[in-house]
Amino acid sequence: MDTGKTVEAFKALQKKLKNYNYAMGVISVDGDTAAPSGSYAERGEVLGMLTEAYLGIYLSEDTERLLESLEEIKDELDSVTRKEYEHFSKLFYKEKKIPVEEQVAFSTLVNEAGAIWHQAKEENNFELFRPYLEKLVENQRRFAGYYASDKAPYDVWLDEFEPGMNMEKTDAFFDAIKEPLISLVKKISESRVKIDASFLHQNYPKAEQAKWSEYLMEVLQMDKRYSSLGETEHPFTAGFSKHDVRITTHYYEDDVASSMFSVLHEGGHGIYELGIGDDIKDGCLSGGTSSAVHESQSRFFENYIGRSREFIYAVYPKMQEIFSEQLKNVTAEQMYLAVNEAKPSLIRTEADELTYAIHILIRYEIEKKLLAGETEVKDLPALWNRMYKEYLGVDVPDDRQGVLQDSHWSGGMFGYFPTYAIGSAYGAQLLAKMKETVDVEACVSKADLGPIKEWLGARIHEKGWMLDPGDVIKACTGQEFNPQYFIDYLTRKYSEIYQLEK
Amino acid sequence: MDTGKTVEAFKALQKKLKNYNYAMGVISVDGDTAAPSGSYAERGEVLGMLTEAYLGIYLSEDTERLLESLEEIKDELDSVTRKEYEHFSKLFYKEKKIPVEEQVAFSTLVNEAGAIWHQAKEENNFELFRPYLEKLVENQRRFAGYYASDKAPYDVWLDEFEPGMNMEKTDAFFDAIKEPLISLVKKISESRVKIDASFLHQNYPKAEQAKWSEYLMEVLQMDKRYSSLGETEHPFTAGFSKHDVRITTHYYEDDVASSMFSVLHEGGHGIYELGIGDDIKDGCLSGGTSSAVHESQSRFFENYIGRSREFIYAVYPKMQEIFSEQLKNVTAEQMYLAVNEAKPSLIRTEADELTYAIHILIRYEIEKKLLAGETEVKDLPALWNRMYKEYLGVDVPDDRQGVLQDSHWSGGMFGYFPTYAIGSAYGAQLLAKMKETVDVEACVSKADLGPIKEWLGARIHEKGWMLDPGDVIKACTGQEFNPQYFIDYLTRKYSEIYQLEK
Repeated sequence: MDTGKTVEAFKALQKKLKNYNYAMGVISVDGDTAAPSGSYAERGEVLGMLTEAYLGIYLSEDTERLLESLEEIKDELDSVTRKEYEHFSKLFYKEKKIPVEEQVAFSTLVNEAGAIWHQAKEENNFELFRPYLEKLVENQRRFAGYYASDKAPYDVWLDEFEPGMNMEKTDAFFDAIKEPLISLVKKISESRVKIDASFLHQNYPKAEQAKWSEYLMEVLQMDKRYSSLGETEHPFTAGFSKHDVRITTHYYEDDVASSMFSVLHEGGHGIYELGIGDDIKDGCLSGGTSSAVHESQSRFFENYIGRSREFIYAVYPKMQEIFSEQLKNVTAEQMYLAVNEAKPSLIRTEADELTYAIHILIRYEIEKKLLAGETEVKDLPALWNRMYKEYLGVDVPDDRQGVLQDSHWSGGMFGYFPTYAIGSAYGAQLLAKMKETVDVEACVSKADLGPIKEWLGARIHEKGWMLDPGDVIKACTGQEFNPQYFIDYLTRKYSEIYQLEK
Repeated sequence: MDTGKTVEAFKALQKKLKNYNYAMGVISVDGDTAAPSGSYAERGEVLGMLTEAYLGIYLSEDTERLLESLEEIKDELDSVTRKEYEHFSKLFYKEKKIPVEEQVAFSTLVNEAGAIWHQAKEENNFELFRPYLEKLVENQRRFAGYYASDKAPYDVWLDEFEPGMNMEKTDAFFDAIKEPLISLVKKISESRVKIDASFLHQNYPKAEQAKWSEYLMEVLQMDKRYSSLGETEHPFTAGFSKHDVRITTHYYEDDVASSMFSVLHEGGHGIYELGIGDDIKDGCLSGGTSSAVHESQSRFFENYIGRSREFIYAVYPKMQEIFSEQLKNVTAEQMYLAVNEAKPSLIRTEADELTYAIHILIRYEIEKKLLAGETEVKDLPALWNRMYKEYLGVDVPDDRQGVLQDSHWSGGMFGYFPTYAIGSAYGAQLLAKMKETVDVEACVSKADLGPIKEWLGARIHEKGWMLDPGDVIKACTGQEFNPQYFIDYLTRKYSEIYQLEK
């Protein structure tokens, strides 16, 4: 094969694999949204079959030969194709280590575990979910061994979601933020300032919240031709391609902030996927860099933008118009304070910016033990409740609001949670740099997110995985990742809100 | 291979193909429901790829060898497997006649044409859709030639949707019903009885209609674990398996009857799919017999049950409760008359039982000409409008309410429409037989559809495609198909409603 033909074959292969991922993604999302609950077993079979077909192509000898041909001509490749080749072959040789039949079985297990988790959460029945979680932990310890038998399983999974990460670095990150955060939480609890957020918990009918969501999607300038907003138990973003990005939210009629910040959060993920460059959209570099970089974008729109005073003031007239009855006696400032109330709580997704990272720290420590075999699945509820008491001072009334609250583990995703906190910290560092050239406050005050989206778009979204995660932060800010920006941001913000002593 | 292994391989193949159909079906339905509009091109690629994978398995030499092995042992097969073999091989040798690349291209064309049809209908722009429809007609004439070069293309397609049908038989059917129906319509137009249906067109908010739909789904005893009700531009049923049946409706806020009868209609299709026997659920006999037999079931619940006086009286208290403001001065009898008003109209899906068949007759005659090359696509709007004037006496104000109203042609489905009228007529014959052993009026009066579902379930639903269409009617009723039951039913019903002279 000549160079042109080899490259062409490589592009076609990537597109084909992306199409398989599209198919499997749509079927999974459908399973979480429109599909009747009793269909999960059959859907599991279908996904297993597609996984098998996908892997049959992906991990074939043809693919291996193609990669060998690319290796020979790699110096002739343009920069995108070269990076695609490097990224693809790295994943390929890693994936080859897992027997195809085990991958297929895993995909079936995950589908089933997801349905059972839903049921277990609904029925507040951890025992129902326990055997699946045990299988998942066992599976992921085994898979980690296939990937790198010389590494601790949890190191393997941390690196999976955030290449370059391991327990040592993650420990260092949490060590850096833990004390300052806990100290801030303590000072706040002693502050004279008491925030009234009770008006967030009046009755906010779903239909009105849906209107409010639509407005927020407009403010985020989400292209409606290529994105949609749905409704699920647990909000998520599924970016099948830059022309098909689904975000979902969940409406609680007694909590107007919940869906609002879900939409901004998932919207941030969606903006990333919609912004992928045309030169990389069909290949393995599309879909964004690591989970933490992705999370830096969702948190950016949720918190750095969405929970800023400027943003709340800018969108509040519309909010008050939609919820005219509920908010008639509430000022924009009251709303700003209410959505920034820092208060230890039970549910991660509802947590404020400050205590959020502590929710993650708890999950990180639990996963560490779980993957190391230092704790058993059956002991998780007790462990979970103990840690919530110790770190956040809250009593967990039931597993639904405790260990069963998140879907991640039902998907076999261990090592994913830390990327939420790391991503938040990336975001603070990006914001500091952005402010050197963009008048962020002025833009947000006008609800004009254009210049902000452009800044992020040109540096992050367009490039997809052209840069590895660590390099993204370096390229954008000229510095290594530094959690101090995150600590400074939180200290400044909450000192002002709660009038804390310096 | 020994017999056991051969059968096992055959069962596994059927299940695999069913799984591919599940995947493609979910992706198509998603395209019609949740997917953002701009994703259609990529979805087309994905569907093309899956079609290719599906056909690669279906039409492979392995499959051919398997069928040859089955042929050798066919006398040893149990009755289900034997019928599966016969049905499968009939379709297989037919399908083999179409080159794989043309099938793939067709699947891409259909996906694209579907999106364009949506747009064309929305914009009332037939010219936008015209080139696609031309390609589809040309394609289906060509495919028909592959299937049977000695037959007229339209005969091939009539047989495709209703095996055993051709133009001769369909002409005979329409000839039998045409005069009696047109004469009934004429008498009705001269009747002193004028039905007031205006109250159906007050404002009926979507949320309340959704509640009403939920109630109807309960009356139909649709198993919620395995079925769901969604919302689309054009209502449909997608039965992916007996554990995953999706029906959809469309809510018009100025027309409460529209969605009501869509739910009952699609519900009838859904009941069929949910009722497939466990012994055939994973193979090629699942999913119901021909389109007309399927339609006999949907029309059964929509019309023979749903538009009966007993049914309306039985569900009316609930209807009045939900729409308390709109219906406070309307009696059950007025509702019964309103939903049975026979009046020539523009939109097929909104037509009454009587004029419905005339809408179908028009489509049948147009398709006949189109597939015979006796009319060109560009002339369709004019032809359509002329025939509506001639047969129904109505003026078509625009193509949106004319030739662009139905989605079928955008899916390349020519020859499907006649099954709607034939299916209705099947239904009348089934009802007459059912009444010999089931007290239909008494059951319906209590809104207890159990005995009716059991009768149909045991004779039709459970059996899937164990019997060919013509044989279904014969096995159920002990007679050949006879349209006279349909004519008698309509004559009796409308003579009573409109107090017509004998």
